[in-house]
Amino acid sequence: MIQIEEGLLATIQKHGLTHLLLKGKFGLEKENVRVDKHGRLVMSDHPESFGQRETHPYIKTDFSESQIEMITPACQTIEEAYDFLSNLQDIISIELETRGEYLWTSSNPPIVPKEDKLIPIAHMNNPDEKEYRIRLGEKYGRKKQLMSGIHYNFSFSEELLLLLYNEMNGGLSYREFKDRLYLKVVRNVIRHRSLLVKIMGASPVFHDSYREFCQENEIQIGEDSYCKPGVPSIRNSKCGYRNLRDYTIPYDSISRYIHGLQQLIDENELMNEKEYYGPVRLKAGKKGDTLQKLLEDGVEYIELRLFDLNPFYKNGISKHMLYFIHAFNLFMLFLKEEPENQKRDDAQLLLGMKRLYEDMELAWAMKAADWALSRYQNSEESYAEQIIRAVKEDSYIMFHMKQSLAFLQESKTTSYQLSGYEDMELSTQILMKEAITKGLNIEVLDRGENFICLSDGQHTEYVKQATKTSLDSYSTVLIMENKLVTKEVLKRAGIRVPKGYSYESIEGAMKDYLKHSGSRIVIKPKNTNFGIGITIFTETYTTEDYRRACEIAFQHDQMILIEEFVHGMEYRFLVLGNEVAGILRRVPANVTGDGYSTIKELIERKNEDPLRGQGHRTPLEKIQTGEMEAMFLHQQERDFSTVPAEGEIIFLRENSNISTGGDSIDQTDEIPDSYKEIAIQAAQAAGAVICGVDMIIGDVGNGDAAVIELNFNPAIHIHCYPYKGKSRRIGQKILDLLFKQ
Amino acid sequence: MIQIEEGLLATIQKHGLTHLLLKGKFGLEKENVRVDKHGRLVMSDHPESFGQRETHPYIKTDFSESQIEMITPACQTIEEAYDFLSNLQDIISIELETRGEYLWTSSNPPIVPKEDKLIPIAHMNNPDEKEYRIRLGEKYGRKKQLMSGIHYNFSFSEELLLLLYNEMNGGLSYREFKDRLYLKVVRNVIRHRSLLVKIMGASPVFHDSYREFCQENEIQIGEDSYCKPGVPSIRNSKCGYRNLRDYTIPYDSISRYIHGLQQLIDENELMNEKEYYGPVRLKAGKKGDTLQKLLEDGVEYIELRLFDLNPFYKNGISKHMLYFIHAFNLFMLFLKEEPENQKRDDAQLLLGMKRLYEDMELAWAMKAADWALSRYQNSEESYAEQIIRAVKEDSYIMFHMKQSLAFLQESKTTSYQLSGYEDMELSTQILMKEAITKGLNIEVLDRGENFICLSDGQHTEYVKQATKTSLDSYSTVLIMENKLVTKEVLKRAGIRVPKGYSYESIEGAMKDYLKHSGSRIVIKPKNTNFGIGITIFTETYTTEDYRRACEIAFQHDQMILIEEFVHGMEYRFLVLGNEVAGILRRVPANVTGDGYSTIKELIERKNEDPLRGQGHRTPLEKIQTGEMEAMFLHQQERDFSTVPAEGEIIFLRENSNISTGGDSIDQTDEIPDSYKEIAIQAAQAAGAVICGVDMIIGDVGNGDAAVIELNFNPAIHIHCYPYKGKSRRIGQKILDLLFKQ
Repeated sequence: MIQIEEGLLATIQKHGLTHLLLKGKFGLEKENVRVDKHGRLVMSDHPESFGQRETHPYIKTDFSESQIEMITPACQTIEEAYDFLSNLQDIISIELETRGEYLWTSSNPPIVPKEDKLIPIAHMNNPDEKEYRIRLGEKYGRKKQLMSGIHYNFSFSEELLLLLYNEMNGGLSYREFKDRLYLKVVRNVIRHRSLLVKIMGASPVFHDSYREFCQENEIQIGEDSYCKPGVPSIRNSKCGYRNLRDYTIPYDSISRYIHGLQQLIDENELMNEKEYYGPVRLKAGKKGDTLQKLLEDGVEYIELRLFDLNPFYKNGISKHMLYFIHAFNLFMLFLKEEPENQKRDDAQLLLGMKRLYEDMELAWAMKAADWALSRYQNSEESYAEQIIRAVKEDSYIMFHMKQSLAFLQESKTTSYQLSGYEDMELSTQILMKEAITKGLNIEVLDRGENFICLSDGQHTEYVKQATKTSLDSYSTVLIMENKLVTKEVLKRAGIRVPKGYSYESIEGAMKDYLKHSGSRIVIKPKNTNFGIGITIFTETYTTEDYRRACEIAFQHDQMILIEEFVHGMEYRFLVLGNEVAGILRRVPANVTGDGYSTIKELIERKNEDPLRGQGHRTPLEKIQTGEMEAMFLHQQERDFSTVPAEGEIIFLRENSNISTGGDSIDQTDEIPDSYKEIAIQAAQAAGAVICGVDMIIGDVGNGDAAVIELNFNPAIHIHCYPYKGKSRRIGQKILDLLFKQ
Repeated sequence: MIQIEEGLLATIQKHGLTHLLLKGKFGLEKENVRVDKHGRLVMSDHPESFGQRETHPYIKTDFSESQIEMITPACQTIEEAYDFLSNLQDIISIELETRGEYLWTSSNPPIVPKEDKLIPIAHMNNPDEKEYRIRLGEKYGRKKQLMSGIHYNFSFSEELLLLLYNEMNGGLSYREFKDRLYLKVVRNVIRHRSLLVKIMGASPVFHDSYREFCQENEIQIGEDSYCKPGVPSIRNSKCGYRNLRDYTIPYDSISRYIHGLQQLIDENELMNEKEYYGPVRLKAGKKGDTLQKLLEDGVEYIELRLFDLNPFYKNGISKHMLYFIHAFNLFMLFLKEEPENQKRDDAQLLLGMKRLYEDMELAWAMKAADWALSRYQNSEESYAEQIIRAVKEDSYIMFHMKQSLAFLQESKTTSYQLSGYEDMELSTQILMKEAITKGLNIEVLDRGENFICLSDGQHTEYVKQATKTSLDSYSTVLIMENKLVTKEVLKRAGIRVPKGYSYESIEGAMKDYLKHSGSRIVIKPKNTNFGIGITIFTETYTTEDYRRACEIAFQHDQMILIEEFVHGMEYRFLVLGNEVAGILRRVPANVTGDGYSTIKELIERKNEDPLRGQGHRTPLEKIQTGEMEAMFLHQQERDFSTVPAEGEIIFLRENSNISTGGDSIDQTDEIPDSYKEIAIQAAQAAGAVICGVDMIIGDVGNGDAAVIELNFNPAIHIHCYPYKGKSRRIGQKILDLLFKQ
């Protein structure tokens, strides 16, 4: 029988603490080596776009220059840590593709140069770090140091620890109590680690070029690859990522643990504590993580270092696995320690785990135990067996490369999203993704409002909706918010704006119907964005059409504007500082006839595109079938049931905003500089640093242009992910302005 | 019979141009000498608070250092010019009172030193200006140069001139046409100027000390004063503000006008063209107003220089008079020129004017003609006669001083308002008034939104609602706008904030009822200002009270906050830059019982105070009798019909916002610096330059304080015009920040 710490269990149940068991802090670290499309280690430098590897909190290099390391912050939930890792994976693999490089999906090395010293050591600025790696390479072989894996860091919830301490401290100090608790977990994890390796092991096959390290019992399973019977993880095996000798470090107290490590260092067995490649490490905290600090402050969290990269999952690990690891670690807390000779077998252990969580009615943990049990029981379906079968089919290199390319594709499909933040505005997701790329610390202050805080340690910036920042002054925003004032300011700066009149009542506007009726006009609320409430009349229109358009505009403001309609194409110039970062031509919502579908059907079909969504969470918006569209069709003597001819383009809106279903076409490189100058002047007239300038250009080349609006909160996703044309890294440019280089 | 230019009249009527007759540009200039309370000329310097007299566009010095000059900009309407003058009058007289000085209400000098050279000449920076004044003093006597008046500048509407030109140019260029038109008006004005003097003359009496200039036919009418029979305006008379000889300057063409003046200058009769004291001047434009420019550009406007200060009106002139002057000038345009010997008498002229405007159905002008006619016909009631009677009753000095003091009182009563802008927010009116004082150019860009533009010629600033400026960044405003984010930012800066929870649904809030029910709490919408939707429970409250308060809060936001109620007094700290510019204790809406009135009656009585209004256009707001007040009374087991005991103070609100009827008490000087430091830190944590910091202080002196809110649009009028305590010049400080000194 599996023995459970009944006192602990009773305390937790009595005080209703089970919900705290899923809380805590979770962090993941993952290494991948970079390869070319043939699965050969690349010798190129770490990508410059990831900045300084030594200060970047999320993207570093490990042993080799070609070995990229992804590090999540300490997250509040498992999901959050997983999502962060997923985002790093997406960012890195998409960036690498631009260099013809890919992330190698196995813990075991890819094709490496014959000569070990050709494997590049990470170009660290710190000479000690460089020297350390050179010596590691000499000691273990650089090839072996290329072995990559996932480290899992976690701490229990502070609330749980404090409540347990209050109930069962046994006269210990809180620090002692906590250390003992973690040490017990660590001892149990080490005792039962073979179960983790059996279930999670995913590096059973190694390449011919690694054979020098593994010449016992190997079986050739393909032209270039070998495995060892019953070894699911070469990385965790004797010929894996191990110290030269098996050291026994005691885990019965912090001081003995430290003493054990220190002794090995003093005896020159190890260069420092980091060289100890045990399955678990005790950690004193991210910053200043030294043995000295551990001695002073005790355990802050523990690090499990025995997980392989799993080539079946984009992120090298799955959420199921992470929940299982946490359930396992928790079980190690509940499990009574037994003498080595009474060690239970893994099946017993898993069943005991399942039973405990059933008793506790801890749904997520029961599910995790079930998942592990079914994997354990069906050993043919273990990850290791599946990999061996796949390698036999494809070859070691081809299988792992196929997976890499498939994951890259997966990353690209949703590249405009940030995992875990899909409910936020796309522009904000893009900015946050660039912030991760740049290595900034990100905090979401108000999720519903897309209000975030970015920091590089020295400097902090608050940003709302991606483009509401400290770069613009409040009065600048107020100028842009008020269309009347905007026009006045532009006019004074000598910029052409459409002539217009303002009205405070329907009656006032109706009085001027005759004045306007001969001209093409735009009727719009004084202050709103996104084309809401705007009607454009370019054909003849009735008094009733006119009145209705005024009514719609008045629904959004107490004052409306009736302006001349300036003929031409409408462009969105995105001004950032002193440059135009993107120019987008926006084509009003439209469908192209096929000769048999109705307009309604054509709209439905166009809206099926996954890039089209609602509420600005996809790069394009669905075409609507509302009153405005119906009225516009009516002007063309059509309705939703009309069947357009094949190839006929039917517009559903006069206004071309993306937010009302328009198409976006990047033309940044096509538009002459003279127009860019006008856009920059317009932004500067309002004192704006970040500004969406909407310009009508009659005939590109003849200089005929009018600025119709300035936007203080321009969407950036439309430039980053246009319907057609080149993507622009707007988020990056905004961050460069906020955190001046 | 009066002869009218029928062609002109027909053209105007045919093309419906009569509505353009009231349009044009209007500017006023007024001089007053400064006196002490005994009516003696003061020798003090021009007030420093009005800045540089030579560059200030509105407040200057004329001949003497003691002779202040008020200049309005060129305004679009008569009303606007009048209001601007009125504001200058208010600003100057209130400022002068702080020095024990007053504006002398007569065109004729007050008590002046015997020795002419004791009258101080204006301290001009420009040595030529100084020298010119010294020579004027020598030539005319400084005393005579103290004579003050009102100059009336006007031009016809450009639209009217252009339309007339199109119809009846007779082959002339537009410039020639315009010059001829203005010259005709000027000739007629000069021809008939005696009518203007008869109606408007208001300087019939002069002081004993001025007798040396007027020793013909004078009649003593009091111990210290004299008049001349039939002379309503000493200033316009032979012993008034005249050149040494009567020069005849021709007005038949611009070149002859210029030639005439130039000749006098060449002959050393005049030092420059400004020394010609004719009743009308031709002007070429405000800037670079020289004879040379007049020759080049023609007439831009004309200046009538013959109006006396009228001691019966605060601003020295009334709106009736201004409309009359304009109607008169227009009539001079319509009137056919007649040979001098056929000159009509004034009564004929007035009747002709009335008839013309009746024919044209020009209501405002008919009214003006009627007004003048009735004044003319009742010569006993002319201003001159009234002044003579008043002087006989009181003495010359006493009468004019009495008027001065009464006008000062009038200015003070509405000192928080800006004439002509009373529909705008009080804070904006105050800021604009300070801008006038400082000599800034002001434009109202969007009146309804209180959006203005200020400029000192070099630098332009856009300001909305007085405290929304370029000084604060947009992200700073967004931080303050979001109560959750504000608290987070303050907490991080180590500033105490009330503990709190946020809820997104009534259900969520109701679940926590038990958690909160023991404590004193504040329930409020996440993002709103002015205390809207806030309920405070300090006594026990029922589930229903709690639910209702949540519902009220949810009416204003999708998220509500329930926070601990921090006990103590609430203070508003107004932080401007690095200093606390004002501290206000705000006392919740309250009434004090008299033993027989109901609470409702007490509220009605307190609300009668003219300082209490609605919509932030008075320094205090009326106490309301709404649901919130009813609920709060209910908590105290009272209702609106309760009769409180004499002296009993009944609070109607828990929250102390001025906007919900609270009282404001300035305590800037009483609160220790340590709290000011907290307020400044709080503002700086959000990066704010202009910030209203709401702080609860438990016990002043023991350091116990919590910041409950930051406001990015703090009202300034509450500090400028508190219910009790010292007034603060907040508008001035904001302008100092915007236009750094």
